[in-house]
Amino acid sequence: MTVVPDSSLTDHACLIVHGADRPGIVAAVSALITRNQGNIVAFDQYSDDPVGGAYFQRVVFHRAGLSAALGAIEADLERTIGGEFGLEWTITDQASPKRMAILASKQDHCLLDLLWRHRRGDLPVSISMVISNHPNAADDVHSFGVPFFHVPSVPGPDKSESEAKIVELLRGNVDFIVLARYMQILSPSFLEQVGVPVINIHHSFLPAFIGAEPYKKAKERGVKLIGATSHYVTSELDEGPIIEQDTVRVAHGDTASELARRGADVERQVLSRAVLWHAQDRVIRHGNHTIVF
Amino acid sequence: MTVVPDSSLTDHACLIVHGADRPGIVAAVSALITRNQGNIVAFDQYSDDPVGGAYFQRVVFHRAGLSAALGAIEADLERTIGGEFGLEWTITDQASPKRMAILASKQDHCLLDLLWRHRRGDLPVSISMVISNHPNAADDVHSFGVPFFHVPSVPGPDKSESEAKIVELLRGNVDFIVLARYMQILSPSFLEQVGVPVINIHHSFLPAFIGAEPYKKAKERGVKLIGATSHYVTSELDEGPIIEQDTVRVAHGDTASELARRGADVERQVLSRAVLWHAQDRVIRHGNHTIVF
Amino acid sequence: MTVVPDSSLTDHACLIVHGADRPGIVAAVSALITRNQGNIVAFDQYSDDPVGGAYFQRVVFHRAGLSAALGAIEADLERTIGGEFGLEWTITDQASPKRMAILASKQDHCLLDLLWRHRRGDLPVSISMVISNHPNAADDVHSFGVPFFHVPSVPGPDKSESEAKIVELLRGNVDFIVLARYMQILSPSFLEQVGVPVINIHHSFLPAFIGAEPYKKAKERGVKLIGATSHYVTSELDEGPIIEQDTVRVAHGDTASELARRGADVERQVLSRAVLWHAQDRVIRHGNHTIVF
Amino acid sequence: MTVVPDSSLTDHACLIVHGADRPGIVAAVSALITRNQGNIVAFDQYSDDPVGGAYFQRVVFHRAGLSAALGAIEADLERTIGGEFGLEWTITDQASPKRMAILASKQDHCLLDLLWRHRRGDLPVSISMVISNHPNAADDVHSFGVPFFHVPSVPGPDKSESEAKIVELLRGNVDFIVLARYMQILSPSFLEQVGVPVINIHHSFLPAFIGAEPYKKAKERGVKLIGATSHYVTSELDEGPIIEQDTVRVAHGDTASELARRGADVERQVLSRAVLWHAQDRVIRHGNHTIVF
Repeated sequence: MTVVPDSSLTDHACLIVHGADRPGIVAAVSALITRNQGNIVAFDQYSDDPVGGAYFQRVVFHRAGLSAALGAIEADLERTIGGEFGLEWTITDQASPKRMAILASKQDHCLLDLLWRHRRGDLPVSISMVISNHPNAADDVHSFGVPFFHVPSVPGPDKSESEAKIVELLRGNVDFIVLARYMQILSPSFLEQVGVPVINIHHSFLPAFIGAEPYKKAKERGVKLIGATSHYVTSELDEGPIIEQDTVRVAHGDTASELARRGADVERQVLSRAVLWHAQDRVIRHGNHTIVF
Repeated sequence: MTVVPDSSLTDHACLIVHGADRPGIVAAVSALITRNQGNIVAFDQYSDDPVGGAYFQRVVFHRAGLSAALGAIEADLERTIGGEFGLEWTITDQASPKRMAILASKQDHCLLDLLWRHRRGDLPVSISMVISNHPNAADDVHSFGVPFFHVPSVPGPDKSESEAKIVELLRGNVDFIVLARYMQILSPSFLEQVGVPVINIHHSFLPAFIGAEPYKKAKERGVKLIGATSHYVTSELDEGPIIEQDTVRVAHGDTASELARRGADVERQVLSRAVLWHAQDRVIRHGNHTIVF
Repeated sequence: MTVVPDSSLTDHACLIVHGADRPGIVAAVSALITRNQGNIVAFDQYSDDPVGGAYFQRVVFHRAGLSAALGAIEADLERTIGGEFGLEWTITDQASPKRMAILASKQDHCLLDLLWRHRRGDLPVSISMVISNHPNAADDVHSFGVPFFHVPSVPGPDKSESEAKIVELLRGNVDFIVLARYMQILSPSFLEQVGVPVINIHHSFLPAFIGAEPYKKAKERGVKLIGATSHYVTSELDEGPIIEQDTVRVAHGDTASELARRGADVERQVLSRAVLWHAQDRVIRHGNHTIVF
Repeated sequence: MTVVPDSSLTDHACLIVHGADRPGIVAAVSALITRNQGNIVAFDQYSDDPVGGAYFQRVVFHRAGLSAALGAIEADLERTIGGEFGLEWTITDQASPKRMAILASKQDHCLLDLLWRHRRGDLPVSISMVISNHPNAADDVHSFGVPFFHVPSVPGPDKSESEAKIVELLRGNVDFIVLARYMQILSPSFLEQVGVPVINIHHSFLPAFIGAEPYKKAKERGVKLIGATSHYVTSELDEGPIIEQDTVRVAHGDTASELARRGADVERQVLSRAVLWHAQDRVIRHGNHTIVF
């Protein structure tokens, strides 16, 4: 999976198409791109069942003067792909990166890893802000030139107050949210209010060890591998569509804190891949699954 | 983890010691080996808690004319390690391989893999017999010069009849049993009657997807890795001490049958490692955990 | 990468297109398939340079009554894709599996693994014959219902005599050849005479440890991972286009023979994946590289 | 491999013993520890050849009031292990961490990763200083409270001037040096003058792609995996004893810069493991090999 360097994203559009499979979709989409003077750079498609299944397609194409042409292309998509084929479609200008917010807590390894990758130019996003329920990372975040807001988590089940503050900060400012070991369960109403995708990193190989203290549970069960899972957040805890997972070997002598130390490496790898792929429009949600192109 | 070639196992003993940790155990055990003219070849020890924890030790030592000296060594162990230190110990002559029986079903990939590895000299065991509830593998098993018995599984929950036949074949003939995708749940009474360790391969990364059809469940959950787990069988389904696990990457396009095809490779790798380590006395059970030296 | 079960290959064609990249290829190919009543099942494309680069495409499409329509489709391809676009193309009926011959030597792990995978239905090929310079595997090969020929390797550099016998057996009977640890260097004239792709498995992570005794060299260098590489054979030893590679962890205590034991697992995995992908027309050679779709 | 948290290192000693193998070493060492009121916490030993081979042992033991007792223990070691057995030995107080210096260049991923891990308490070392031939990382390094020195590399082969400045900074202040993608070849005289172990990270799976631009070479060769290797620096480029290696999968579509992006993750993982193990006295050099306990 190649990350296209930012500079080369000018005049590149990413078109996502999905819906009921039927013959001729590839031909129709590629003909549309051609007649709109586009040149296909990357093309992926998948049908979960050749007969009466769902169809998914991701196309990246180059079109000189894209921004000026985008309106006409969208009208064409509406008429043909939306109209004749009855498919859903979204098109994005790759030159305008998605705006990402990071929610963090005391553990800073995933947070700092994302900030560092972004500074290196490895994450094609803009980072709007970091919100943490601990103040400890403020200086680090500022050193990356990113706004930092400290919103303490009120103890007890009712998170409405802190969630309200967070929503206020996020609303209108972000295209997606990353929970970098945020360790707070977000309410369905929060997810509804922010209205953008929320990506979480869970420190186990889901569906094993759902919920709190997975490394402790892993130690108790005596597993020989530990893992991490990045998924879209839904109203059901740790049950959302999985974007990426990975595992690492452990041994009988490793303590629970050693599992946490090793797991931290897997967490930041898995989360950064999930964020990269989401930022590149490589991930399509379908029910409780993801198609990752 | 090195597999010592059979030839070099002559006059090699493997001593396992475990019990309550206390200072001086290493010194006592190594002094005992030295005064019995043994030379330590491999030495592993582990304490799960330096203060008041459990102690585990595996020592392989060479002693010219081992079989003649074994009696005296055992008496010494009884007196010092058992007596003074109050530890449990077992000593085995590495030159006499463990007798293994394989229980199989229609799926033959794990069964054939074990037979091939044994023929190549990669598994230091003797294979007493293969028992299957399907006749299909008979010719293959015979081509390896191994006795094959077909014991059909009676439909329904009551397995006592087929289990009784299997116990009759196994009793006194085996030191451990391997379930090579046997796909039948063994009753507690069966485990009691055979009275030897039983190693199973489960086709998921436990504790994820316990029970039947793990690949189907994995496909439904949309995981990005599948795995296999080899564990000792206990009366609780898929809850026994884990010996070895591994995972392999899958993608959204992989069907459930493709997961099964890929998983088969992981299953035979994981099972063969678990069997090898058990055969080499590398695995010590402790509660629901294993120490693998 | 999904292996389509044989049964479902009826009326499926695989079209490979490659040549100089230019706008409109995807549209032209998909339009051609649509106007020939084909429905695209899988579609992969790659351009090694958006500007003036080489273009590669693999399309699998379903077309009822394919065999009857194949002539017309080929004529259309010749006219448009070959003519207008000046691209090279090949189309194959997926229902007619490629004919594979295996050349083997004393080490049988890769040979038996391929035979076993084929019997399970995991390799969509037909196995024409096994040729070995050792007689040891004859019974095993026959047990799979595959013809076995013993062609001893004449000592010394001049292999022309044994190569002539092998060419005689292979000519006209195979679509590709697999060297399953054949351990003999084939002459350029042999490669020319057989005139089909030859896939080799080398027991190292190329380009490390080219040539003989890679495990011995790996032990001497003290590497912490060993590997295996499957590649197309060219006239230069171990320099052909790489299809697949993998590695496995080893430790300081592993002897050279232990490295060989572990490596054998990696070898058969890597070779079987390379053979599968070649059999599915997923591998396109381009200079000394491969594109694997 | 468990990293013991700093707090728990008080009164813990690590004893390394190596030399010609002979019977009774384990007994002698463990008896010595027992008679000096030590309790063994971890014990590893290895002999590269049971007959006339070299012997290696690492023991961690707890001894109340270690610092006061160290003199007597050393005298005992000198008399018995050094004298009677003629073995080399070193004993270190685990509570006093090794002093590490980092040499870096423009690429900061390995440098920052080590600083982060140290701040998290995952590396039991003290960081004396960072020396870089680029000024860019100064602020980042200072934010970790670590001294930073900018020593530009003089163009051309003669590095004596800049090396002299570096030696001046390092002499007497460090126990080992880490080259975190330093990208300069150090002269034999430099290695001699600093007189401490130097650990390098090379961005390929050695011995493949020795020297400059390994990712470019990997792309040219068309490998399917890239890797990283951490090794002790010797006077021969990229030929020193390997401490740790790892690999990651790449695909035909990955550009050389994408390989570098992915490789960066492997580099920092591999280097951090090598540094951790060296800091814990787990790595013993033997000729051009390492034993990693």
